[in-house]
Amino acid sequence: MTTTLLKSINSPEDLRKIPVKQLPNLAKELRRFIIQIVATKEGHLGASLGVVELTIALHYVFNTPKDLLIWDVGHQAYGHKILTGRRDIFDTNRQLHGISGFPKREESDYDAFGVGHSSTSISAALGMAIASQLNGDDNKQHIAVIGDASIASGMAFEGLNHAGVTTANLLVILNDNAIGIDPSVGALKQYLTNVKKGTQKQDNIFEALNFNYSGPVDGHNLTELISELERLKTVKGPKFLHVITKKGKGLKQAEDNQVTYHAPGKFDADTGELAVKTSNKLPPKYQDVFGVTLVELAKKNKKIIGITPAMPTGSSLKFMMEEIPDRAFDVGIAEQHAVTLAAGMATQGLIPFCNIYSTFLQRAYDQVIHDVAIQNLPVIFCLDRAGLVGQDGATHHGVFDLAYLRCIPNFIIFAPRNEIELRNIMYTSQLGKLKHPIAIRYPRGRGVTLDWEKDFSEIEIGTAVQLKKGSKIAVLTIGTIAVNVSEAIDILNDVDTVSHYDMRFVKPLDEKLLHHICGTYETIFTVEDGCIHGGFGSAILEFASKHNYKNTFKLIGIPDKFVEHGTTEELQQLYLLDSLSISKQISKFL
Amino acid sequence: MTTTLLKSINSPEDLRKIPVKQLPNLAKELRRFIIQIVATKEGHLGASLGVVELTIALHYVFNTPKDLLIWDVGHQAYGHKILTGRRDIFDTNRQLHGISGFPKREESDYDAFGVGHSSTSISAALGMAIASQLNGDDNKQHIAVIGDASIASGMAFEGLNHAGVTTANLLVILNDNAIGIDPSVGALKQYLTNVKKGTQKQDNIFEALNFNYSGPVDGHNLTELISELERLKTVKGPKFLHVITKKGKGLKQAEDNQVTYHAPGKFDADTGELAVKTSNKLPPKYQDVFGVTLVELAKKNKKIIGITPAMPTGSSLKFMMEEIPDRAFDVGIAEQHAVTLAAGMATQGLIPFCNIYSTFLQRAYDQVIHDVAIQNLPVIFCLDRAGLVGQDGATHHGVFDLAYLRCIPNFIIFAPRNEIELRNIMYTSQLGKLKHPIAIRYPRGRGVTLDWEKDFSEIEIGTAVQLKKGSKIAVLTIGTIAVNVSEAIDILNDVDTVSHYDMRFVKPLDEKLLHHICGTYETIFTVEDGCIHGGFGSAILEFASKHNYKNTFKLIGIPDKFVEHGTTEELQQLYLLDSLSISKQISKFL
Repeated sequence: MTTTLLKSINSPEDLRKIPVKQLPNLAKELRRFIIQIVATKEGHLGASLGVVELTIALHYVFNTPKDLLIWDVGHQAYGHKILTGRRDIFDTNRQLHGISGFPKREESDYDAFGVGHSSTSISAALGMAIASQLNGDDNKQHIAVIGDASIASGMAFEGLNHAGVTTANLLVILNDNAIGIDPSVGALKQYLTNVKKGTQKQDNIFEALNFNYSGPVDGHNLTELISELERLKTVKGPKFLHVITKKGKGLKQAEDNQVTYHAPGKFDADTGELAVKTSNKLPPKYQDVFGVTLVELAKKNKKIIGITPAMPTGSSLKFMMEEIPDRAFDVGIAEQHAVTLAAGMATQGLIPFCNIYSTFLQRAYDQVIHDVAIQNLPVIFCLDRAGLVGQDGATHHGVFDLAYLRCIPNFIIFAPRNEIELRNIMYTSQLGKLKHPIAIRYPRGRGVTLDWEKDFSEIEIGTAVQLKKGSKIAVLTIGTIAVNVSEAIDILNDVDTVSHYDMRFVKPLDEKLLHHICGTYETIFTVEDGCIHGGFGSAILEFASKHNYKNTFKLIGIPDKFVEHGTTEELQQLYLLDSLSISKQISKFL
Repeated sequence: MTTTLLKSINSPEDLRKIPVKQLPNLAKELRRFIIQIVATKEGHLGASLGVVELTIALHYVFNTPKDLLIWDVGHQAYGHKILTGRRDIFDTNRQLHGISGFPKREESDYDAFGVGHSSTSISAALGMAIASQLNGDDNKQHIAVIGDASIASGMAFEGLNHAGVTTANLLVILNDNAIGIDPSVGALKQYLTNVKKGTQKQDNIFEALNFNYSGPVDGHNLTELISELERLKTVKGPKFLHVITKKGKGLKQAEDNQVTYHAPGKFDADTGELAVKTSNKLPPKYQDVFGVTLVELAKKNKKIIGITPAMPTGSSLKFMMEEIPDRAFDVGIAEQHAVTLAAGMATQGLIPFCNIYSTFLQRAYDQVIHDVAIQNLPVIFCLDRAGLVGQDGATHHGVFDLAYLRCIPNFIIFAPRNEIELRNIMYTSQLGKLKHPIAIRYPRGRGVTLDWEKDFSEIEIGTAVQLKKGSKIAVLTIGTIAVNVSEAIDILNDVDTVSHYDMRFVKPLDEKLLHHICGTYETIFTVEDGCIHGGFGSAILEFASKHNYKNTFKLIGIPDKFVEHGTTEELQQLYLLDSLSISKQISKFL
């Protein structure tokens, strides 16, 4: 491909030397470059293709990195990374020790604020803008680029509401493409659609919040963008630019199939065709076990509701949305609302399955405590992407959930070791006997069972199972890390010594069995794919302390640091959670 | 006082038998009844006085409890409680084993949803309204009464955004009195003010979100209220009624001093005059130690910023807002925004003190992890109302913070045992040496030190102190519960046996000292006014397990249940955290 212009740009300073009329060619090169790399290295595609012109225009007009630019969520920041000195290492994107898939402060001065979760950009940029005012730096610009799905989240509204009563030099750019990962939803989205169509009779909602509003402008027209940004540079105070873009712009398949091409995996850079996946039958993804099982249960149990905050595809709730649309809800990026909506439904006897990625449930922590747990409402939380999630890195690992949920009274916490356990706990939870809220946490990716669509059987709350018998050491696991432990025990090749228990419930613990275990084994390992501090192993220590057991306890899990990006297998090795590492740790006690 | 009408009402059914023309008299009686009881029993006054007419009108027009009525936050629900069968036990309000100061499902069928934290009502009511649709109950009404301070919080926007694309029978009533606990802030508040004044040129922001808007109506005019509510009862789908009220209505002092009379303590029911407080010098409130110290530090250190989400009075940040207004920010009920705003400021070298009640930091848990901790920004969190808070009860106790913060990498967690320690850690945190975010958690109410405004001295991060020497048992404490433990040791009257350590930092632990302690004392107690699961004691167990210590550890703290309301002293006795109970627990090991 031709990359003459792109190759000349090692920083935005180089970019600013290029004549305006050549910028459309640069846009072509940049778009092509992103497609070429992502086609083979994988990553997020559609969002970055949609903002190629906007990215060029922003760095062209503004004096980055002195002017501070924040990309909300950050899926769309590949062009930004490439133009800010990371072109030649862009092929390490999302790889272990490579660059992050998201803007990250320690990676570049051009990454003004680390992102990953949505809707933080307005608050962060406002904080920076106020800092500039206090520092007497009145000409500095502070720019938040936020999508129409992200701006509908409550946190973004809080930022706008505050900004509107300041005189801070804040420019909020709404990148309106009518889609997040899945299509945007909600009343605000309808409103924006009306604005675009010119059918919105009302004056502007953002003007009502005291912003100087302009737009909508065509986000693929560089001349128009640059001209408008130049004008806005001279406008003081909070201002709002509404930009219309198309996600996936410049690759036909990505434009036509925006959900699929959000993060398409490998594809043909020229044709856009997705790589043919192996036809060998693989175990299912956990998300699909959830999605299929929920439909199966909901067809029989009319009280079942499905709720997702903006992850119908990622959670596979879309299966229920397609088959039983009146009882399946995508509420947008609104985790807080999702949880309390579920609580409200539960008061009326419905059985809500609220599916939220583990890392995103952090957004609704208070609602989990205050609206669900205090009232002891039997909401069923299905926490996808629990444990290590791989390439999305530090912002997305679901490693804190066991710790932050375990301290909440009334909660049941379960982690299935395989697909069948997931199905059975979902079945158990909707029988109408559930006396408490329950969190069911399971990982990203595929399970281990080909023949997983078995008949349901009920799981007794608070009961563990023994997977292997042994005489001297007990290994207690929670969730799918049981698979690594089973392999570790195989590696040890020491048939009689090591017992393996799948505790299944972090809460309530199987205390009867724990008394037996503490009375039988001198050394007890706990293994979890979550943080050690306050997690599952910690629960076992509390049990032992309470009952005065003085066994030797060894806790294996994620240490007290943020885990970066890499494949899940690489990260497990790094943190000694792979089979071989676990076997080595156990073998020291044999 | 005359209570002829009020005495005849044991449920809203009785209310509905009263002729409309007598309702103003009932309003007078109800208002008087609230004033009489709160004057002697204490509690929240102004909010309930402001909605007397609205409360009567709602129960008069709607078929409660079949129609579902949710009071956002719930400070304003005293009239509701009195009219729904709790008149004769209203004098037990907020007392141990008495009725709750907030609506609570288990207390009454008329309390459709438990509240305490703000901005949950729209989501909960929408969940109920969707449930009614699915149950085929199309005539049922679902009403959320929400204040103008609460509706500006992100969660409320999320609820509106979803509701606007449904056909659910949801009535949102905006109780607009331009004040929460402190005066409302933000762009939306300005907008609402313009609507009231008739100077808002734009069409309606709530109509833009697809609500059927009506108002503003006079919230003290029963005829107007009843007529409009009757009309709205026949309107299908999401609808929005804007009601203007005056907080404190009917008691002149409460109208004139709305912040003071939010929860005025004891006062004269006839004159409204506040009870004269004892003139004996008392130790200061911790909030005032924070407020005064922050001003003292900020005068010298120009980088210091103060931030509160809607608690300037409760946190005493108002002192800085008065003295250094350009660096002190009340951002409204927007904990999420407050935290990320602070993070944005910290990236620019400012030193933000972000003051949030412990229980409300749950609202910003993800922002603490994602925007502060991952980026390791040295934001200083001052968590007021940590531990047991007394009469506000289960929704407000700050007992989970040690557990939910301890699992977050990069965090420092400190709890002062007295006023001087709080001052010194604040001083230490702003010296420019802080390499991590820090959470400083301290309780509601007064400290123990009269002469507290001492010169500052720096505290070395991660160091504990020994308060008393002993030979056999070590008691490790965190925070102000140290006072109870000191008294407990005095009660034991066993001079040489018990050592007392104030660990000060839950994270990082003073590991050097802990090695010494574990090597010296057979029995080690930990005492904390937070949940045992995952808390401070749990951290000590993890340390011991890691280093293979097999001492006897006894964890004292809040067990795994939600703590109800009562005085802090009563609750400490109930949960064995008072001096006598602690001494008894220790004495078993002497």
